[in-house]
Amino acid sequence: MSSFSAATQDEVRRHNLARIVRRLHLNGPASRSELVALTGLNRSTVGVLISELVDAGLATEGAGSAGTVGRPSLVVALDPLSAVVVAFDLRVERLIGAVIGVGGEVLARRELKHRRQSFGPQVAVKQLVAMTASLLESVPEGAAWVGAGISVPGIVDHGDGLVRVAPNLGWNDAPLGALATAAMASEFGAGPQVRVGNDADLGAMAEHVRGAGVGSQNLIYLSGEVGIGGGIVIDGRLMAGAGGYGGEVGHMVINPAGELCRCGARGCWETQIGRDAVLRAAGRELDAAEVQDIVIAARSGDDAALETMRTVGGWLGLGIGNLVNIFNPEVVVLGGHLHHLIAEVPGATVDRVGSSLRAPREQVKVMAPELAGDSTLIGAGELAFAELLADPLGILARSASLVAS
Amino acid sequence: MSSFSAATQDEVRRHNLARIVRRLHLNGPASRSELVALTGLNRSTVGVLISELVDAGLATEGAGSAGTVGRPSLVVALDPLSAVVVAFDLRVERLIGAVIGVGGEVLARRELKHRRQSFGPQVAVKQLVAMTASLLESVPEGAAWVGAGISVPGIVDHGDGLVRVAPNLGWNDAPLGALATAAMASEFGAGPQVRVGNDADLGAMAEHVRGAGVGSQNLIYLSGEVGIGGGIVIDGRLMAGAGGYGGEVGHMVINPAGELCRCGARGCWETQIGRDAVLRAAGRELDAAEVQDIVIAARSGDDAALETMRTVGGWLGLGIGNLVNIFNPEVVVLGGHLHHLIAEVPGATVDRVGSSLRAPREQVKVMAPELAGDSTLIGAGELAFAELLADPLGILARSASLVAS
Repeated sequence: MSSFSAATQDEVRRHNLARIVRRLHLNGPASRSELVALTGLNRSTVGVLISELVDAGLATEGAGSAGTVGRPSLVVALDPLSAVVVAFDLRVERLIGAVIGVGGEVLARRELKHRRQSFGPQVAVKQLVAMTASLLESVPEGAAWVGAGISVPGIVDHGDGLVRVAPNLGWNDAPLGALATAAMASEFGAGPQVRVGNDADLGAMAEHVRGAGVGSQNLIYLSGEVGIGGGIVIDGRLMAGAGGYGGEVGHMVINPAGELCRCGARGCWETQIGRDAVLRAAGRELDAAEVQDIVIAARSGDDAALETMRTVGGWLGLGIGNLVNIFNPEVVVLGGHLHHLIAEVPGATVDRVGSSLRAPREQVKVMAPELAGDSTLIGAGELAFAELLADPLGILARSASLVAS
Repeated sequence: MSSFSAATQDEVRRHNLARIVRRLHLNGPASRSELVALTGLNRSTVGVLISELVDAGLATEGAGSAGTVGRPSLVVALDPLSAVVVAFDLRVERLIGAVIGVGGEVLARRELKHRRQSFGPQVAVKQLVAMTASLLESVPEGAAWVGAGISVPGIVDHGDGLVRVAPNLGWNDAPLGALATAAMASEFGAGPQVRVGNDADLGAMAEHVRGAGVGSQNLIYLSGEVGIGGGIVIDGRLMAGAGGYGGEVGHMVINPAGELCRCGARGCWETQIGRDAVLRAAGRELDAAEVQDIVIAARSGDDAALETMRTVGGWLGLGIGNLVNIFNPEVVVLGGHLHHLIAEVPGATVDRVGSSLRAPREQVKVMAPELAGDSTLIGAGELAFAELLADPLGILARSASLVAS
């Protein structure tokens, strides 16, 4: 059995390195004792693993404040400049990019408005490459470039980064992941595979590991833009469905007597609470107004605006009630314009969520995102870090080091 | 690192034994070569593991037909009389029990109608114990009694088998698992902990591993009785939600202008497609008719019955469409009376499921249960086998052997 147990020991070592790096990445510096408790390994084994991380340059160890009172303890921390990813939030009307260090710190950030009409996949990839060059220039020499991730408002095939459909961008079967990976390799000589994810999924994951959902294992993140998407975390894992199409909660029919949806059905949730639906209900121009304008009007006593907020808030609560009954989550996070609807008319949503079953209703908290507008960007960064977190030293060794240009 | 790697080797051995037993339990006899391919271990290691199973009496090995053509190969099979569980499907108006051998064969079966009005938890436990005695008598001496499972039409806490609420039984916070475990131990001197599960969850699991969902990783099972429940399998795992209340798809509001539900909301799915709703729509007496009567009437040309079938089938399809958009499952299994509604009016449901998004719609199959009326009973059996499948030799060694009485 010797070859068999040798293979296993290598797997076990990688697994334990991964657990330590993941812990430091998500929760910050930790003492040796905390890492011993986390892994269940003995002190000397943990010491060996930490030395490997320090030797590779990924972590530092020194006197520090990991929160323990009393005798100072050696504290292990990741070096944010040792390994970095680029992350993008590709929205309908703007592109936001960031370079993020291991540990989650945003090291640099860019934002660029674009014209939706002329923003096809090829144009997008050119902007992604240009922004990547600009972002990486701001990182000191020697950092390893370990990943790249893009959030897209559409249905994505995770394996190859194919954007099957992004209705509000007008994209169909756009091979964004493959195009971006090839363009990066061509521009920079080398580069990681570019991962692509759905915006609601990435928002859910970011809020789960770094935001409103920390400590909960079951979370629903609703992305509120023109459409309504859902990112759903079950037992700590993102739900994808058989083909990666899961989470299309915006196309849950809740009002069969309602408006025709662009999907062909009648009374989908997004025809009741999507951005355009809210603006239309308030009698506003779709291109000239924002949901926040209605909130301001409602606050200043505008009856029509207040009535819109109540009606839309009611439909929001009704749909949340359905999801609470179906998923029994601990947290529902309202992204985009949706959190205005409860923040301003507190009674409405709670009343309708109140029509869900008692037990799951008592367990759920309906919250605004803690990462504010950055949930999806941070989620794209986590997607980009996934490979490093699974095999820290292996990926670090195989990644290109940045050379100052 | 020696103690650390020793612990790991024992875990690895248990894990590999578990994989082999699980494979044999769910898919039947297998050749050594198949088990080598399954585990990725070398031939001699697999041989050692098989010997351990044979020595413990759990498996046999001999010339057999495991489906391979050509040179006969040694075939490994579980002995169904080596380890057994008792499984119960506790319904509103009857109790069905079975003793099931490892490998999934039903060795003996009992069924007993009861009066719903006087069927409290204490009465139920007495019947469970009496039926268990009768079932175990039919098993030859020497079998190990390794588990017991009960399916209940209610919301269950999996840890301790507390039935939080079973509305159609009129039960609230009934400690069924603890009561049954204590009663079994008292009656039989020893016995396994009695596990309790929700009927839709167990039906989903059974159809997933042994029925219509074999080969799929994402499945929704709808239990169609007075209420409508959902058992939801995601990536091969049953979804429970934060408190085990997940899957209450019957309380998804799909018609806000509809009837008041007993949960307090208006237009829940179960007010449109539950058994009572179907009978009421057809103008039948709730206590004197079955959904099948309406199917028969529709078949023989009764316009009112046909109209009921179409209307209810439409609501069924609308709700399935919502679930398809939310979960992107490969299979939706219609339990209880629900499969009549598509079997007889094929156009109706497909049309409404057709209003869901194209991609997930193309991936889903809407099917009748393959285990027919036994999905939940078989699911209770699988729940009872779970511990044996996780640690076959450990559980076998710790279980009481049956002595013929």
